[in-house]
Amino acid sequence: MARKIRLGAFLPGGGQHIASWRHPDQPVDGAVSFEFHKHLAQTAERGLFDAYFLADNLAVGFGGAREGGNDRVAGFEPTTLFSALAPFTTNLGFIATSSTTYEEPYLTARKFASLDLISGGRAGWNVVTTTGDSAAQNFNLDTQLPHASRYKRAAEHVDVVKALWDSFEDDAFVRDVQSGVFYDKAKLHETNHRGEHFQVRGPLNVPRSPQGHPVIVQAGQSEDGRDLAAATAEVIFTAHQHIETAQEFYRDIKTRARRLGRDPNHILVMPGVSPFVGRTLAEAQEKYERLTSLILEEDGVGLLNGLTGGTLDLKGYDLDGPLPVAPPTEGMKSRQALLRQIADENNFTIRQLYQWVASARGHYTIVGTPETIVDTLQEWFENEAADGFNILPPWLPTALDDFVDLVIPELQRRGLFRTEYEGTTLRENLGLPYPVNRWSVEQPVAQAAE
Amino acid sequence: MARKIRLGAFLPGGGQHIASWRHPDQPVDGAVSFEFHKHLAQTAERGLFDAYFLADNLAVGFGGAREGGNDRVAGFEPTTLFSALAPFTTNLGFIATSSTTYEEPYLTARKFASLDLISGGRAGWNVVTTTGDSAAQNFNLDTQLPHASRYKRAAEHVDVVKALWDSFEDDAFVRDVQSGVFYDKAKLHETNHRGEHFQVRGPLNVPRSPQGHPVIVQAGQSEDGRDLAAATAEVIFTAHQHIETAQEFYRDIKTRARRLGRDPNHILVMPGVSPFVGRTLAEAQEKYERLTSLILEEDGVGLLNGLTGGTLDLKGYDLDGPLPVAPPTEGMKSRQALLRQIADENNFTIRQLYQWVASARGHYTIVGTPETIVDTLQEWFENEAADGFNILPPWLPTALDDFVDLVIPELQRRGLFRTEYEGTTLRENLGLPYPVNRWSVEQPVAQAAE
Ligand SMILES: Cc1cc2nc3c(=O)[nH]c(=O)nc-3n(C[C@H](O)[C@H](O)[C@H](O)COP(=O)(O)O)c2cc1C
Ligand SMILES: Cc1cc2nc3c(=O)[nH]c(=O)nc-3n(C[C@H](O)[C@H](O)[C@H](O)COP(=O)(O)O)c2cc1C
Repeated sequence: MARKIRLGAFLPGGGQHIASWRHPDQPVDGAVSFEFHKHLAQTAERGLFDAYFLADNLAVGFGGAREGGNDRVAGFEPTTLFSALAPFTTNLGFIATSSTTYEEPYLTARKFASLDLISGGRAGWNVVTTTGDSAAQNFNLDTQLPHASRYKRAAEHVDVVKALWDSFEDDAFVRDVQSGVFYDKAKLHETNHRGEHFQVRGPLNVPRSPQGHPVIVQAGQSEDGRDLAAATAEVIFTAHQHIETAQEFYRDIKTRARRLGRDPNHILVMPGVSPFVGRTLAEAQEKYERLTSLILEEDGVGLLNGLTGGTLDLKGYDLDGPLPVAPPTEGMKSRQALLRQIADENNFTIRQLYQWVASARGHYTIVGTPETIVDTLQEWFENEAADGFNILPPWLPTALDDFVDLVIPELQRRGLFRTEYEGTTLRENLGLPYPVNRWSVEQPVAQAAE
Repeated sequence: MARKIRLGAFLPGGGQHIASWRHPDQPVDGAVSFEFHKHLAQTAERGLFDAYFLADNLAVGFGGAREGGNDRVAGFEPTTLFSALAPFTTNLGFIATSSTTYEEPYLTARKFASLDLISGGRAGWNVVTTTGDSAAQNFNLDTQLPHASRYKRAAEHVDVVKALWDSFEDDAFVRDVQSGVFYDKAKLHETNHRGEHFQVRGPLNVPRSPQGHPVIVQAGQSEDGRDLAAATAEVIFTAHQHIETAQEFYRDIKTRARRLGRDPNHILVMPGVSPFVGRTLAEAQEKYERLTSLILEEDGVGLLNGLTGGTLDLKGYDLDGPLPVAPPTEGMKSRQALLRQIADENNFTIRQLYQWVASARGHYTIVGTPETIVDTLQEWFENEAADGFNILPPWLPTALDDFVDLVIPELQRRGLFRTEYEGTTLRENLGLPYPVNRWSVEQPVAQAAE
């Protein structure tokens, strides 16, 4: 079977673009409307997307922006929302973000296994370390832990979660009414983890879920982030402005994974793309200008500061002048560097920079027709820059409709994308192997293949 | 309006009665079947129940029983399950259990606010301290904290959660596209809690939910448990075998609440009842015998040990002899005392005791016709023993159907129970007041009335 492009959909309900809530197509209460999220999920499924993705933070104010001007200030908690959406769809995956720094592995393992059960095998976990003091201050700390400590904790957290997901072997549940044997107690295993950060006995009180393990997703870009991704992730989100940096990242990740003995085909690299789609280039350009015109200055400036972890205080600077140099951050190092790069390359003023990143916050923005957009996606896909893409419609729902109705058919016409779902689980649709339970020693062949 | 009986439904999916999974009416995979839970929720709503309730533990093995013999060993996580069930119902409340000992207040506040949003105001939180070392060992401890420390932590945890639920005032969201004001920043408040156990800055990243605060439920029976309930709970679950002890408890709770300045009508006491319903007494008795005959000895013995927090090791004892005296427990003190009482009063052997508690694990078991059952409920309701009841159908789904089809109509005939829902939120149906936001000082009248 020919390799196909994988597609995730970033559909925050509230806007992806900082001014999208001011766009007439987007419901102003989208961020807190269950019906709206249901419509988005069903549209993504109509487009045969692999998964619906939700970013997350554990504090008010994700994404910066002016106080009072941000429609993403408050919304649903991702795993409860996705649980509620799952029964209204049949094939779409649901990738929820959850923090390794502020959550406990037993609870992480449990909620994702539960979502996987509810959805019949369509759950994914976006593993994040959660940057920023504002989240730390909601969890008994004054400031966040250093970058390196967060990643050490993350690696251990993921290990424990995976062990807990193996608590019951696949065939542990006998449910024999006659004998009264409900499960085979020899197939229920304690985890007995005693590590630097966590001590967890197990077993987990959720059965092995349909996917065995929900799909592990990761989005760290630093050295530590790449190491964690190479060791554990099956899908990687990333942000690039150029095919060259995307290729560098792609090859680096695949090399790291191979070095760790993993099959590089089982770690899918998916850069973010924010598409403004028009039937003509002029129409696409018009859509871009329209949304850009809705950005308030204060919001643009706040966004840049937010994206760099609060290191870019632009008060007093001329917005039509150059971007000043920001001090180093313990937060999202990669995002800070990326903003610098975009500004330098394009010779952007502060205003032009915020206008450009307002739609996708560091991801690749494409303004084009279905043909030119697919040209780009195809080029990235066929030249070791991407295994698929995360689509960030700049506003909702109509920019998502544009992608589904105009771009997907073009992808299909070129044989680059599925015309129907391959399977019912997220793993099957992504072409990822089923993780053999660590306790099921009877299956050495399958285990070796993993 | 005449006072009405409130009804909760304990519908664990897996069996309430220890042998219920061996009952031919109950699907053996009920504990992990989303469709089955959906059917139960819709049946409860057909019966006009106030709420669906799920107990919870943070370890394998809740409720004791023999290894391998327990169908409640694994299942869904309650808030994800309830989020998925909510859209398939319109009036039914959902009371999920969540631990103050092992969860973080920010996450507790968030998941319940999210469930409240998803369900349109039908969420309740059963506040528990989670007894047992097995749960402690999943959360970085070797043994559980002492009873008193758990309750101190619980009180602080609830305080923080309630403060977080007030982060946004009710009218904080302006969503004015023209001016770009999405929310009024003066109506977003930090919590700034610095206590003995928690330090939480806030604000919560979920809006005030439809109920303002999800309904607070509590089930501790000890002195500390009653103090917490009187201070914070709006619904209280309790287990009694006799109207006299139920009355003592009822009056004690109402007195404690009054002493704290609360309106005793806003704290609803709901004892558990496990009904075997027959059109005739003989038919009801037959249903009881049938289920009892399915209990395996080992499961019965394990159950008694589990219910007393592992203090009743009955190995070597004659099952047809008397119950030995158990050592004191740091776990469920009240449950241990209750078992002793049931055994003494009825002069039960070990076997008779486990047969009796197998259906309801300490709650009141009634075997009767709709008329005799309603006689009892009415007596309790009209004589300061109960404001309502939590119904624990001994097996599912047919024992729930029996209650809905036979007992509910009899309750309605006597004017004791609603014939349609009063409102769409759990609070409205329970007749509980809407909690005024602590920051909304403009409403002194409403605040005084709370
Ligand atoms: C596409 C993408 C999506 C991300 N989503 C989240 C998120 O939802 N929540 C979060 O806390 N961090 C998110 N991050 C941040 C990363 O998980 C990571 O914490 C951050 O990049 C800092 O790590 P680094 O220094 O390794 O890059 C995202 C990053 C990228 C590139
Ligand atoms: C009806 C009822 C339901 C309960 N449900 C739970 C539960 O789901 N999870 C839990 O950990 N404890 C549960 N408990 C235990 C209580 O919340 C409390 O922790 C226990 O009774 C010990 O406290 P106490 O010593 O104050 O009684 C329940 C108790 C009762 C009476």
